[in-house]
Parts: sequence; C-alpha cells; structure tokens
Amino acid sequence: MKAKASNGARTISGGVTAPKGFKANGLHCGIKNSNKSDLALIYSEKPCTAAGVFTTNKVHASCVAISQAHLKYGHAQAIIANSGNANCMTGKKGFADSRAMAAAAAAGLGLTEKDVCVASTGVIGHPLPIKKIVNAVPALVKGLRAKGSKNAARAIMTTDSTLKEVAAEFTIGKKRVRIGAIAKGAGMIHPEMALAPHATMLCFVTTDASIAPAALRAALDSATGNSFNMITIDGDMSTNDMVLVLANGMAGNTMIAAGSKDARIFGEALETLFLKLACAMVRDAEGATKFVAVTVKNAQSAADARTVARAVSSSTLVKCALFGSDPNWGRVAAAAGRAGVSVDAWKMKIYLGSELVLKNGGPVSKKAGVLDRIFGKKDITITVDLRTGTHSATAYTCDLSTAYVELNSAYHT
Amino acid sequence: MKAKASNGARTISGGVTAPKGFKANGLHCGIKNSNKSDLALIYSEKPCTAAGVFTTNKVHASCVAISQAHLKYGHAQAIIANSGNANCMTGKKGFADSRAMAAAAAAGLGLTEKDVCVASTGVIGHPLPIKKIVNAVPALVKGLRAKGSKNAARAIMTTDSTLKEVAAEFTIGKKRVRIGAIAKGAGMIHPEMALAPHATMLCFVTTDASIAPAALRAALDSATGNSFNMITIDGDMSTNDMVLVLANGMAGNTMIAAGSKDARIFGEALETLFLKLACAMVRDAEGATKFVAVTVKNAQSAADARTVARAVSSSTLVKCALFGSDPNWGRVAAAAGRAGVSVDAWKMKIYLGSELVLKNGGPVSKKAGVLDRIFGKKDITITVDLRTGTHSATAYTCDLSTAYVELNSAYHT
Repeated sequence: MKAKASNGARTISGGVTAPKGFKANGLHCGIKNSNKSDLALIYSEKPCTAAGVFTTNKVHASCVAISQAHLKYGHAQAIIANSGNANCMTGKKGFADSRAMAAAAAAGLGLTEKDVCVASTGVIGHPLPIKKIVNAVPALVKGLRAKGSKNAARAIMTTDSTLKEVAAEFTIGKKRVRIGAIAKGAGMIHPEMALAPHATMLCFVTTDASIAPAALRAALDSATGNSFNMITIDGDMSTNDMVLVLANGMAGNTMIAAGSKDARIFGEALETLFLKLACAMVRDAEGATKFVAVTVKNAQSAADARTVARAVSSSTLVKCALFGSDPNWGRVAAAAGRAGVSVDAWKMKIYLGSELVLKNGGPVSKKAGVLDRIFGKKDITITVDLRTGTHSATAYTCDLSTAYVELNSAYHT
Repeated sequence: MKAKASNGARTISGGVTAPKGFKANGLHCGIKNSNKSDLALIYSEKPCTAAGVFTTNKVHASCVAISQAHLKYGHAQAIIANSGNANCMTGKKGFADSRAMAAAAAAGLGLTEKDVCVASTGVIGHPLPIKKIVNAVPALVKGLRAKGSKNAARAIMTTDSTLKEVAAEFTIGKKRVRIGAIAKGAGMIHPEMALAPHATMLCFVTTDASIAPAALRAALDSATGNSFNMITIDGDMSTNDMVLVLANGMAGNTMIAAGSKDARIFGEALETLFLKLACAMVRDAEGATKFVAVTVKNAQSAADARTVARAVSSSTLVKCALFGSDPNWGRVAAAAGRAGVSVDAWKMKIYLGSELVLKNGGPVSKKAGVLDRIFGKKDITITVDLRTGTHSATAYTCDLSTAYVELNSAYHT
C-alpha cells in the first residue's frame, strides 16, 4: 500500500507553493452556503509550460473545454478553481461563466485569458453565481502568498474531510527541483482521464523544473494512468475531473527532454506524488471505513490486469463485504469473471492478505477466524493471480458503507 | 411500466404446472440452516424440446456447464435446482456434485442423467452438501404434483421476499397453448445471459406448445435480451444465472416453425412473462424502496440505447439520489456521458417523469416541488432522449438503500 519510493526524492512541505515562484490563495466568495472557502487561485510569477488530463466523460463541464483550449499551445500561468458548483450542464451561460472566471483572474493578475486554466467542482446543473466569483477576484489576487498552498487546497474541498497536499524535492543534473500538488475528491470518483478529455477529482500540480512540453505531457499521462485512473470510490466517472501541471523552469536545471533519464526521474517523482494523493482520496472516501488495494498479477496484458483490478475494486457486493468485514472471496471471483477479459477459473488463485483462499477452481480450507481477522483490518490487500501471463496492475478502493448511501441520498450533494 | 400486452394472451394461474403434462415439487433437504425449502424439481411426463440461456461470467458454477452440456441436443425432461449454495468455485467436487444431482433426479424419475438440467443459487465457494440432496430426491419425486408450482418456486428463493410465478394462455392455430414460469432473484443481479454462457437469477419455464428447437432458442434469446438482460439491482453479474425452457408439445398445436407468425405470437407471450418476472425481481430487490424504468430514446443504434440505459440504471450515485428522493438529474447526465457511446450533451434531453429538466446543455427551470414530487413516488420513470438516431431501450432498476448495504455486508449472504 506504500507509495513507490522515487529516485532520491524527499518529501517536503509547502504543497503547490513549495516550488520556486508559485503563490496561492483561497477564500469564501459565497458559492457555498456555509462560510467555507470556495474559490482558489494558483499563480506562477513566470510563464509556464503546462499540460492537463481531463475526464473522458462525454458530458463534461465547460471548464474542461475551456482549460483544454487554453492549454492548446502548452502554456499557462495561473489556475482559478471553485468548489460548491460544477458549472456542468448549465448551457451557454456555463460556457460564458467559465470564460468570465478565467478573464477575471487574468485581469487581476495582468495576464491574458488564455494564460489561465479554470476548474469547477460541486453540484451539476445549477447556474454558477458568477458575480460572486468575479467580485471576489481582487481579494483573491491580493491574498496570494508564497505559503498559500493550504488556503488553495481548502478552497477546492467539497465532501472531503481531509486537506490533500503533497510536495517533494529531488535532483535533476546538479539542480534541486521541486514538485508540489493539491487535490480534492471523495465521491463520484472513478477517473479515466486522458490528455484528450475524461473524471470530479481535481489535482493541481506546480513544479519549478524546466521540462520540454512533450516530456511534461508524457510524464503526466503515465503518472495519471498508474495513480488517479486506478482508484474508484463509487464507480461514477465525474464530468469535471482534471489534473493540471504548471512548470515554470525556475529551478534552473537543464531542460528535461522527452525520453531522457531525467524525464524518468521526473516521471517517477510525479507518479509517487500522484499515488499519495490518489490513496489520500480513497482513504477520505465518502463514508469509507476501509482502504483496499486490489492487485491483479500474471495477466495476459497490462490492459487485462487493469480491467480485472478495476472490476473487482468497483464491485458493489465486494465493497459491501469489505464494509461487513466478511471475507466473501466468492464475490471477488465473480467480479473477476465478469470483467470481460480472459479469466480461467481453474487456473486463477485468490489471496486475501497473504492467505490463499482459491486454487484449482475451489476453496482452500482455513482455520476459523484467519480470514475474518484479515477483513477486520482497516487496510486490506486482495490479490488475484490470473496465471495466464506476466502483466500486473493495482487498483485502490474502499468499502461501501451505509454512511456513503446516507451522504449521497441527502438532497443535492 | 406495465408489461406489453401479448397477442391475445391471458394471464392464468398455475405457474410452471399450468401447461399440460408438467408436475413440480419443492422441499427442505437441509442446505439452509432455517427450515425453508431449498430443493426444487420440475418434471414433464413427456420428453421436451429444451433450450437455455446462461451467465456469460467467465467464472461460472458447474451447474451452468452441466446444464449446457445436457442441452446440447436440445432435449430435456426435468430440472432439479437447489438454493442456499451456488456450488460455484468448489473445484472438481463441485462438478461431480452437479452431475450427482442430475443423476439422482434421473434415477428417481426413470430418466437418464442427460435428460435433467441442474441449477444452484446461494453462497459461492462452499462445498455442496450433496448427500442431503441425494437423500431427499425420493421424497421430492414422490411429492411431484400437477399443482406443485408454488412449492418449486418457494424452494429456489434466497433473499427474495416474494414468490415469483407467472403463466399465460394464448392461441396457436386453433389450439390453446400455455406458458408457465417461476423465477428467483433479488441481489447479484445484472444479467447478461446468452445462448452460450453468462448471471444469479434463475427462471424455469414450461410450455405445452409444440415448437421447433430453432424457434424455441430464438424466442428465448430475444425475450431474455429485452427483459432479464435489461434489469440491474447491484451491477454484479452472477456466476449462476440461467433461464431454462421445456416445451413438451402436449397442447397438440401444429409445430411452431422458426420465423413464422406463430413464432412471433409465442415470442411475444414469452417476452411478456419474462418482463413481468424481471420487473418482479427489481420490485423485490434487496433493500429497494423504488422501482425505476430508464428509457433511452433516439439513439444511433439499439446497442447504444441499451448501453446508455444500462449505465444510468447502474449508477451508484443515481441510485442513491433515488433512495433520497433527490431529483439530481445531473447524475443521470453524467452516467449517460460515461457510457462509452456517442452522446452529445448539447442535443440530449432528460425527463424525470414527464418533466423536461435538461435541454440545450442546460437546466429547464421548474416550480419548486415539481421534481421532488416525482422522485418521491415509488414508481419512477427517467427518459434520456439522445436525439442522434431512432433506436430505443428501457432498463429497469431500483434505488440503493442503506438496507441493501446492511443486508450485503452481513456475514456470507
């Protein structure tokens, strides 16, 4: 369950303002009925090489389209984001509102609209109170701080109970380079993000590395595929998922080229941070009481391994069994079997924790209580060994609790 | 929500023993800890043309393989089925046990093993107490009655709270023909059955129609596709789903040929019965408080319509909103968008009941309370008009309640 250790990277504090030249802020502009923060801004004092991955949902918010358009040439300098309203399925007004958010931030920062990416998260189908946002931008800009990461992180939270912020420092050439990130997400989580649109989780990444656009896009795509795109909370892909990275080059390293050893080091550091945030989302999942890693081993292809891991980790019945601490591995087998890839029930082995429970198509008898103890824990691993190839994948999930249903049946969460 | 009226068919009583020449029974043989019935037998006094559709789960129970093998030549004369144990993932012993069930029934009935189909439903991964079954067969056979349908129907129930039995009578040529059926299923319901294997719902159908094997298979496949394969309770496809039809020809009609007008009449009657049973399963779904029909209209293809209807009806968040009587149609739009087919968010219209809530990519404003009243009802319709083609499909689902989670997190249901 531990995130892979990156090549010499060490964890540091500071989140998105840990890298040189970045400032951030967050405040309450009035979208949320509570007095919680709902508007965030991240700003780089220098122009950035930038890239994003977006939900692949065919129904997506206007902020997804606007941010994609603004990233067309691989540049950006700021991110403005609101919580409490997804500005999705809000018609032409929604589009205009997303642009107005970017334009207001640009005006406040002395940038052009295209230099600003936009993100929203919250309820779908309600018009955005754009005036409240625009009116709050001057105070938002004025409050930008080199230690403002937590303010921004707090302002993108919806049903999250924990603030999600990470940062790391490592060496490229002889230069110290930093990556920082903030994220939100506790429900409607089953991301499938791609460089061309996909899920509402949000993650904003800053780095002072100097990196070629192609290298940045490749690192982002690969790191997302092995982290955010491998978590599920409820199987529902969001309309607003987005990961944005801004790289301002202020660390002064020799530019990282695509395919280079440095690109690998940067990519590993990025993936380590993403995996930490992805796992933090699952640990903070709405109503969840368990954190579960589902590893599929020895599949015929990486795609098959991923598909089976996603099917098991998304199964309503598996997730109910986890909530009840019931080691009902038959549900794991059934979910693997319906994944739609080649699964041989007679070859497949299933482990709960380190205990083998299925082999040769039948149960392995266990002393009473052994499996109950494993499923009674807070952290659980399930391993499905397909024994048909050499490829592996790990998906991360949580249990499905009565509290989740209560939360998500409450009016318009 | 009403099942389509079939061509002159009228509902009759008697279930699987309504058609001429069929007897049935059910009893408690000791698989279930309670004293509830757990072993059922259906028998035709004459040999039958027979067909089955089965779960397409790659992990399936030995009864699926055995029944398929026994139906290879399109004949059978009896069905033996147990509840309380799925006999799935039980290794070589499971296979031997399924065959032993068929063999015991055959011996008691004076048939050969291949004349008997076998079905099981219950917990996965536990060895079947085959001795209890074999020992009970003589009493099971002795108790066969021409009015025994309810006894059989009761013996296949697991978490079902209602007994599911239907029958209809209609005319082929000048002969009155009957179809009867019993079914079970309230959880692990998301069937994808095909003539070559797939879900645990069980449905056993009898008819005294004389029908050609190809016509019977075609009617079964089509009726299943429009009924059982369009329901979902929890999105988890079972390892044991099976629909079996026995046709003994005792009505004395001219044999129904594939592609004929009579085949259409028979097919419509069968589909009407299946739709009644499928809807009965959804109404009896574990923990459910609502019955919901999701219709997708004007899709580019029938497959697209079905895929979107299945995605919306399977969405955890949509189902939570239904439980909470929260008319959160944004979740419907998001689920449609992630279905993986071509969906144009700007063209799509969404209706809750008869109320249009989404058009031109944005919300249609409604008086307060209008939508709340629709979602507060027990029977709800949701319509997604894709406006990209001419094809339609309707899926049936229920809400996701705290009671569902409680039931399925209890030990080894």
